[in-house]
Amino acid sequence: MFKKILIANRGEIAVRVIRACKEMGVETVAVYSTADADALHVALADEAYCIGGPRPQESYLNEEAILTCAVASGAAAIHPGYGFLSENASFARKCRECGLVFIGPSPEVIERMGDKDAARRCARDAGVPIVPGCDLLANPEEAVQEATRIGCPVLIKARAGGGGRGIRRVERPEDAGSAFMEAKLEAEAAFGDGECYMEKFVHPAHHVEVQILADAHGGVVALGERECSVQRRNQKLLEESPAPCLEGRDDIRDHMYRAACDLARAVGYVGAGTIEYLYADDGSFYFMEMNTRLQVEHPVTEFVTDVDLVKWQLRVAAGARLPFCQDDIHITKHAIECRINAEDAQFRPSCGTVRMLHVPNGPWVRFDSALYPGAVVPPYYDSMLGKLIVCSPTREEAIRKMRSALSELMVEGVQENSDLQLDILANPEFLSGTYHTNLMEHLYES
Amino acid sequence: MFKKILIANRGEIAVRVIRACKEMGVETVAVYSTADADALHVALADEAYCIGGPRPQESYLNEEAILTCAVASGAAAIHPGYGFLSENASFARKCRECGLVFIGPSPEVIERMGDKDAARRCARDAGVPIVPGCDLLANPEEAVQEATRIGCPVLIKARAGGGGRGIRRVERPEDAGSAFMEAKLEAEAAFGDGECYMEKFVHPAHHVEVQILADAHGGVVALGERECSVQRRNQKLLEESPAPCLEGRDDIRDHMYRAACDLARAVGYVGAGTIEYLYADDGSFYFMEMNTRLQVEHPVTEFVTDVDLVKWQLRVAAGARLPFCQDDIHITKHAIECRINAEDAQFRPSCGTVRMLHVPNGPWVRFDSALYPGAVVPPYYDSMLGKLIVCSPTREEAIRKMRSALSELMVEGVQENSDLQLDILANPEFLSGTYHTNLMEHLYES
Repeated sequence: MFKKILIANRGEIAVRVIRACKEMGVETVAVYSTADADALHVALADEAYCIGGPRPQESYLNEEAILTCAVASGAAAIHPGYGFLSENASFARKCRECGLVFIGPSPEVIERMGDKDAARRCARDAGVPIVPGCDLLANPEEAVQEATRIGCPVLIKARAGGGGRGIRRVERPEDAGSAFMEAKLEAEAAFGDGECYMEKFVHPAHHVEVQILADAHGGVVALGERECSVQRRNQKLLEESPAPCLEGRDDIRDHMYRAACDLARAVGYVGAGTIEYLYADDGSFYFMEMNTRLQVEHPVTEFVTDVDLVKWQLRVAAGARLPFCQDDIHITKHAIECRINAEDAQFRPSCGTVRMLHVPNGPWVRFDSALYPGAVVPPYYDSMLGKLIVCSPTREEAIRKMRSALSELMVEGVQENSDLQLDILANPEFLSGTYHTNLMEHLYES
Repeated sequence: MFKKILIANRGEIAVRVIRACKEMGVETVAVYSTADADALHVALADEAYCIGGPRPQESYLNEEAILTCAVASGAAAIHPGYGFLSENASFARKCRECGLVFIGPSPEVIERMGDKDAARRCARDAGVPIVPGCDLLANPEEAVQEATRIGCPVLIKARAGGGGRGIRRVERPEDAGSAFMEAKLEAEAAFGDGECYMEKFVHPAHHVEVQILADAHGGVVALGERECSVQRRNQKLLEESPAPCLEGRDDIRDHMYRAACDLARAVGYVGAGTIEYLYADDGSFYFMEMNTRLQVEHPVTEFVTDVDLVKWQLRVAAGARLPFCQDDIHITKHAIECRINAEDAQFRPSCGTVRMLHVPNGPWVRFDSALYPGAVVPPYYDSMLGKLIVCSPTREEAIRKMRSALSELMVEGVQENSDLQLDILANPEFLSGTYHTNLMEHLYES
């Protein structure tokens, strides 16, 4: 095992990784921006270094500063968390060049899966169902032709996309040309890569993703799935495991797991990763993308499987073999995660100083957060304050447990969205378990 | 299931029971003393009634007030928590007379197990090994005779004893007479019952206890054991499951479980209960007593078994059958609990207002407590502020996880004992897992 690692992140995920390291006896090096001098991850790490100004480009994306800290402090590896440098193949390559282990898959795999078009072809070659569509579009005319061939509605998607940018929905083939140009310009501006492809718009659909864990010796295990259909503007709000839409469909679930593991094996994946699918109520499912990092929503999987994903990320990065196989994974519990975001009722980000904090607790309740009384929520980073996660033997109990926990949560000084989460948990469509990715639109109509 | 229950307790255990009820959809009635008007259990319950002054006799032991509240509020059952009325057979009988379910075993069983001499005979009849000793002692002369027969050292113990009172250790037979008189007088003063018996003093020994859960249909399951040998003046400080002293001794462990279940069956036990054993390093073990209630340290069992003991207490009290049997219980994790007491470094109770509070959190960390920022710790009740519990795949990891969690805990305004707990977790005897009930004496010698 590594003697010391550097955590190239901030907030709850940096705290999460540091706590795992303490349990494993691994020393930790934190890095921080000037805005985070009093942050919890800085206080908990064994060593901490300021690497730049508050803006991400100055600090958490400052590759040279991070690599310098890692080498100078004697860290053997870097955990990138999620976001920031976690899916940056070039950074992973630089780690390798500096003699550091990047805790994640190889730069080649990150690169391949980060190119959505390449990932789609890769999935198809591994036998994973993909959404009917086409390869990269050359021009607006081809967009119109393909939209006609595939059949509307279709989505035009940027190869380098993420966070909902570079995506256009097309209802009529004749609109495909202008939509293609819009998506291309947006993607060029956002990602420096304007290449786009087209997919059938599967709707209504569920966002179901499979967590996999792979070692460097060919061991690959699917650690259940998560339903992440509660989204607003492509941002997940609430996740649960198992997926209610797969209840009684173990055949489909098994197929999803097998496809996910086949893809991981085909690309030589090592570490924790997630295969995102669109699932339609007719039982069909399609590969969306693979996230080559830890997901925000990994705790629901940890609760239902009893597997600590962060500890296993470190172990497989250090060369360990997984000591369990697919047959050892039996999921008999239900977990739900609510993201607690610093925002007002109109979804505008809220920042400030946490004056008072009361966190729910008790059996099978977990709150992953970097909050503490007096903590400052700066305006430079994403608005997630923490993640409240509960686990129960049944979905019904888990929902009640989450309601009770949300009602207990008190944050003063920063506005947060627990009332919105309580609305979701009271919504009949959510309660029925049949909800799709458009649930949040329905919530606001009613 | 009950529609509504009353919780006849305060502090962390009242909060624990209320949270379980919320998860089950059971309404809750809290009762409180004038000292607890702003307590967390009052805020969390659906209804709350003040039942008297701050002293326990005025409120939490005020049987009439509690029964009146239960009947008037329409509660169907009473959960007594631990301490206070939880092992009071007469109160359990009054509940029955008022048409209320007492969540625990029958008054007859409470009575029988509360009489330590009767419990001892009961255990012997059920085939549970008991400490060599004798029945009730008539006079000082008989005490000297029996001490000679059994062989010193022996313990003279009050039948009604508890909390370490009414116990005398005798090193030479000739001292047994005066020790008997002392124990008798102390027991008369403390419990209104001066009857005493004698047992061989098994030393050095481990305090190992087996958690059982029984339904009203003959189903009895042992949910693993707990090692509670870290004690100061007979007060447990730290508990863990599985017991390190039983490592590699599955034969003894099975014997302990079988004996515990046999005793529960023999007395017609219903609910959660604990059989406490003395375990000597030669592999022998002896019945100490049975606690006919939930234990403070129940969370370590919940962590390693994934069974929610409070929810099952309610279910079996409502007549449900246990859906699992002994073969379904597989323990593959290790849990540790540290009691966080409000006391200074000299073990003097500390009270006051919690000005600042930071609670550790994250995966497999639990803090059962009624604390919140601004909470008042009154001087009238026991000094336990909360219980920090962690769980890991191995004992080594659990110890590191607990150290890390204890280091994160911050309570301002009241002194607490997390530094003492850190000392225990660094003690070589504790780390080796071979420690006995005298560990704390050794800790202060070193």
